[in-house]
Amino acid sequence: MKSKLAVVKIGGNVIEDKAELSRFLSLFAKMEGPKILVHGGGKKATQILKKLGMTPKMAGGRRITDAESLEVVTMVYGGLTNKTIVAQLQALACNAIGLSGADADAIRAHQRPVKEIDYGFAGDVDIVNVNSISNLLNSGFVPVFCALTHNGEGQLLNTNADTIASEIAIGMGHSFETTLYYCFEKKGVLLDMADDNSVIKTIDSKTYMEIREKDIISEGMLPKLENCFHALQKNVHKVCIGDISMIDSESKLFTTLTL
Amino acid sequence: MKSKLAVVKIGGNVIEDKAELSRFLSLFAKMEGPKILVHGGGKKATQILKKLGMTPKMAGGRRITDAESLEVVTMVYGGLTNKTIVAQLQALACNAIGLSGADADAIRAHQRPVKEIDYGFAGDVDIVNVNSISNLLNSGFVPVFCALTHNGEGQLLNTNADTIASEIAIGMGHSFETTLYYCFEKKGVLLDMADDNSVIKTIDSKTYMEIREKDIISEGMLPKLENCFHALQKNVHKVCIGDISMIDSESKLFTTLTL
Repeated sequence: MKSKLAVVKIGGNVIEDKAELSRFLSLFAKMEGPKILVHGGGKKATQILKKLGMTPKMAGGRRITDAESLEVVTMVYGGLTNKTIVAQLQALACNAIGLSGADADAIRAHQRPVKEIDYGFAGDVDIVNVNSISNLLNSGFVPVFCALTHNGEGQLLNTNADTIASEIAIGMGHSFETTLYYCFEKKGVLLDMADDNSVIKTIDSKTYMEIREKDIISEGMLPKLENCFHALQKNVHKVCIGDISMIDSESKLFTTLTL
Repeated sequence: MKSKLAVVKIGGNVIEDKAELSRFLSLFAKMEGPKILVHGGGKKATQILKKLGMTPKMAGGRRITDAESLEVVTMVYGGLTNKTIVAQLQALACNAIGLSGADADAIRAHQRPVKEIDYGFAGDVDIVNVNSISNLLNSGFVPVFCALTHNGEGQLLNTNADTIASEIAIGMGHSFETTLYYCFEKKGVLLDMADDNSVIKTIDSKTYMEIREKDIISEGMLPKLENCFHALQKNVHKVCIGDISMIDSESKLFTTLTL
């Protein structure tokens, strides 16, 4: 039987709120068994960019990472955010080790090819180094990944944190029974956007088809669900979507996705 | 018999010169056996501080690390410099893993007590986690340390890179036959500051006493030598001082210190 592994992703909404981050880290430190944290960047990178007199460039909601922006995201994601989280987890007796995809050659990617838009130093994941990450887990470390990868030729790349989390969960799925937790601001997938407690508790392939046909959930949620089912089809055991309370062992109100 | 371990420290003069850094990393990647790299910060942190509209504060040549400066050094040392070095080493098939002292609980320190001067978030090293670092070495990783430590209570601290290197060499000296390499801009300890090739090839406790009495070497070098002999007295096998060519296996012109 495979050991269990939790891959937990938090986004900007948690990182930017000190009290919320601290509450999340306490819950994360208490989670039993092997676990991996993946964090997004939040607005700090954009703030620093602006303070340094640069103009953040976006296209269709995605950051265009020119050389200057890459320097800033490397500083903020890989330095400030990552090390702050690691130091706080250590204070909670959780033996965290902060990583970019370059560290331990953990995640290789290639620069996104230029089509209509040149995203600059944005990376699409090629391979997760299961061996390296397993070595760290087996030594009792808790890997904490920021949203940076590398191309194996010395170039760091900016990579979407949701994608990093799902690629890690998929890669590690060969050796572990992997659960992927996406923490966001809602309690789960909602039936009624106006009612925060209208959480759909379980969604499987069949109910997912029904939901899509009946057009009952928000548009923004559909690509998220698509990514989740993509991960489930590629060997991830279970995907959970909810707010940070979801990782509390006593929590019951969140959405669980299975095939 | 103990295995050999090399602890190599590079400073700002190497980091700030792209060609020099790249030459150093090629040599470092080729070094055989277990090894650890420790890098200083260089002027980038001061540049970024100024660009962000802050004023770098110094006292007696040492940085005063207030909360704002700590954010910047965490970004620059822990993020930009560390990850850039790691990505370049990975491209040279050296399985680098970038660390602050908080990562893997590798180096604990305490905030320097306020006497005449309040150095802010400056840390003096308490303990090096030999077990954690050995685990990483045994997994085949090459630890790359930036000049940050933590106090175990969630606080990151700015710590002198020379000190981090010697404390790591001392700590690891219990399990390994450790050689500490200090790379700087000269070829070694010089007899005549005007002649770059007047390197004193070996210094032991006896010649060290003679050198001190005869007042033949530069003032700035004396505290460095004092630190080196401190490390030698605490279980470090050998200390080498020279420019980056020193770590080339064919190099012969540098200073070797032994007891």
